[in-house]
Amino acid sequence: MALADRWLLPEGVQELLPSQARRVELSRRRLLDLYEHWGYELVMPPLFEHLESLLTGVGRDLELNTVKATDQMSGHLIGVRADITPQVARIDAHRLRTPGVTRLCYAGPVVHAMPTQPLASRNPLQIGAELYGHSGIESDVEVISLMVETMQAVGLEHELSIDLGHVGVFTGLMEVAQLTEQQKEQYLDILSRKALPELTLFVNALDAKPIIAKCLLELPRLNGGVEVLARARQLFAEAPARVLDAIEYLQQLTDRLALRFSDLDQYFDLSELRGYNYHTGVVFAAYIPRFGQAIAKGGRYDEIGRDFGRARPATGFSADLYTLVELSSDVAPSLQRVLAPAEEDASLLEKVKQLRADGVSVIYALSDVEPATKCTAQLVQRNGEWVVSDL
Amino acid sequence: MALADRWLLPEGVQELLPSQARRVELSRRRLLDLYEHWGYELVMPPLFEHLESLLTGVGRDLELNTVKATDQMSGHLIGVRADITPQVARIDAHRLRTPGVTRLCYAGPVVHAMPTQPLASRNPLQIGAELYGHSGIESDVEVISLMVETMQAVGLEHELSIDLGHVGVFTGLMEVAQLTEQQKEQYLDILSRKALPELTLFVNALDAKPIIAKCLLELPRLNGGVEVLARARQLFAEAPARVLDAIEYLQQLTDRLALRFSDLDQYFDLSELRGYNYHTGVVFAAYIPRFGQAIAKGGRYDEIGRDFGRARPATGFSADLYTLVELSSDVAPSLQRVLAPAEEDASLLEKVKQLRADGVSVIYALSDVEPATKCTAQLVQRNGEWVVSDL
Repeated sequence: MALADRWLLPEGVQELLPSQARRVELSRRRLLDLYEHWGYELVMPPLFEHLESLLTGVGRDLELNTVKATDQMSGHLIGVRADITPQVARIDAHRLRTPGVTRLCYAGPVVHAMPTQPLASRNPLQIGAELYGHSGIESDVEVISLMVETMQAVGLEHELSIDLGHVGVFTGLMEVAQLTEQQKEQYLDILSRKALPELTLFVNALDAKPIIAKCLLELPRLNGGVEVLARARQLFAEAPARVLDAIEYLQQLTDRLALRFSDLDQYFDLSELRGYNYHTGVVFAAYIPRFGQAIAKGGRYDEIGRDFGRARPATGFSADLYTLVELSSDVAPSLQRVLAPAEEDASLLEKVKQLRADGVSVIYALSDVEPATKCTAQLVQRNGEWVVSDL
Repeated sequence: MALADRWLLPEGVQELLPSQARRVELSRRRLLDLYEHWGYELVMPPLFEHLESLLTGVGRDLELNTVKATDQMSGHLIGVRADITPQVARIDAHRLRTPGVTRLCYAGPVVHAMPTQPLASRNPLQIGAELYGHSGIESDVEVISLMVETMQAVGLEHELSIDLGHVGVFTGLMEVAQLTEQQKEQYLDILSRKALPELTLFVNALDAKPIIAKCLLELPRLNGGVEVLARARQLFAEAPARVLDAIEYLQQLTDRLALRFSDLDQYFDLSELRGYNYHTGVVFAAYIPRFGQAIAKGGRYDEIGRDFGRARPATGFSADLYTLVELSSDVAPSLQRVLAPAEEDASLLEKVKQLRADGVSVIYALSDVEPATKCTAQLVQRNGEWVVSDL
């Protein structure tokens, strides 16, 4: 590697210089305080684990996206975490083992072997909250509300919309459609690309009952405002109960959210199947119009603890704090910086100590080098007293 | 891996559950605030980099301790950082390029391929501060003082002592002793083990001038209180100027530190050569008697930027925040938690929102599950108003 390239970071890797780092730090504190005020307790899982623990109960996407290495101590494969959510589920299932409801939150760096989207960062600062031990609608309402308040706390609420979906619609439809595993994969792939012409060819080739064919064809069109739920109810009138239950669940969810956030734009996408192998109920995401990807996402994933020996209902969300801060136009409060002269004077040392204890930044001048960078005031001696004077 | 083992972490890896995580988070904020009040600006370098950038200008120990993998995007080797200090030096040298003095601080997880000491954690939370662009004693006094205040901020000042050394004593001695590279390595190895009988055999075999032999023999015995400096001055009276300069530097340093921290226990160890390939001047460490290893360490490393094309004077220190919090007996302030009933009531929602904004933790009861865990009060309706009542 040439000398000039040594300081280049790998593609897709970012680092934060002072002004941006300070904004991230302030947002981090604001969000962790918010989660604490909602009863979510902070945990700090490690950066790396045995690969098998890290990938237990999660989908193949996460496996492909995990950086792997051999542990020099044990010879086992270890992985650098690409997602903190499964670690927190492990903590709930095995470390804490609390009966009843457990609410946990976290904030920490993760590493993605490849960007999950074009131009996406490979080292997000993942922040999120998870609720274990409750399977009713109240806990989904709670975590979605907390996701919305997260966006308020970072100044993104004015542009915010949320997308709601429910994997029960898809799984219920699969029950009656009786597709082979291969056909199901193919259908999922078409849905994820919203490739409508291809979909028509696929469904025509299936030779399914007309009502089933219609449902398969209409599913990817079931997105938009709350009227989508009425259309879905009609379309799926004869579908299995779990399909109709899922639609009813989304109706109740949207009503409860509207009571909490009257201005919130809510959209529905019944073919949203992100994390289909992982989620078991409602799935949701937060968007703002000027950014092409979700800025936070989550959902219910009731089965995750099973592979650790303790299946628990679970719901939660997470976001990349770097992205949130980058998109936010909130400015950090400016910092008063005072310059202290390069003197070994006990009364000056005392004055500096006191100013710092009061939350003022005091920077000592150092002999022979440029002194006053970034300072707006300085300490000067007047009548034997050290006082702060404008620069 | 058996089911029961899936939740086991790799040996030497720790994770923090709520009570400990909250203490770490509070200390983290306190320390980053302290550094900000001293004019140190926060940076957030990435968890992984090209291996060559990560290991530029650092010693072989760090290379052995870095977890390596192949970057799927570029095919280059990447490393998970084992130390944040070289990353911050790269930021100073290449990203910021500020003329004059730059003060930076950081807090983040690192990964060690192997424990650096028996029983040491392999995933410390490294926190530290670095000062670039000044080579005088003032900047060493500043960073050592900040290290001492770090210990005060986490409640470890009562047991604290600091160890001071200076690589100039050793390098000056090597100048006159004219050892071969192999002999020098051997001598360093003996010093690091303080293997005194072996040392006698080694020095006798050298056939050096009596005064040189005496210096080589005495060096590892030059540790203790400030009287060590007087003994060293006498012993090294005819040594090159840089040896005497180093001793004089330590004398000035200890005098200046005593002016700032009158109760501080200061020790000297002139054969302390930790990071000898890396440090260029004073080296220092913080200790408490009940813990066998340094709880913070640092020193001057003026050459580190050279390999990035911009050699800068540099001095700084770092510590593992997990260790500091584990050793500290400071308790986190207790948190008031209020239980809210599982009701969809607009006035209740409003009251909960207001309490949370005031910094109170409010936990909603969720239907069908154990409700009151960890709450000391609850919200009840009295005369149409929601009020907080003891549980």
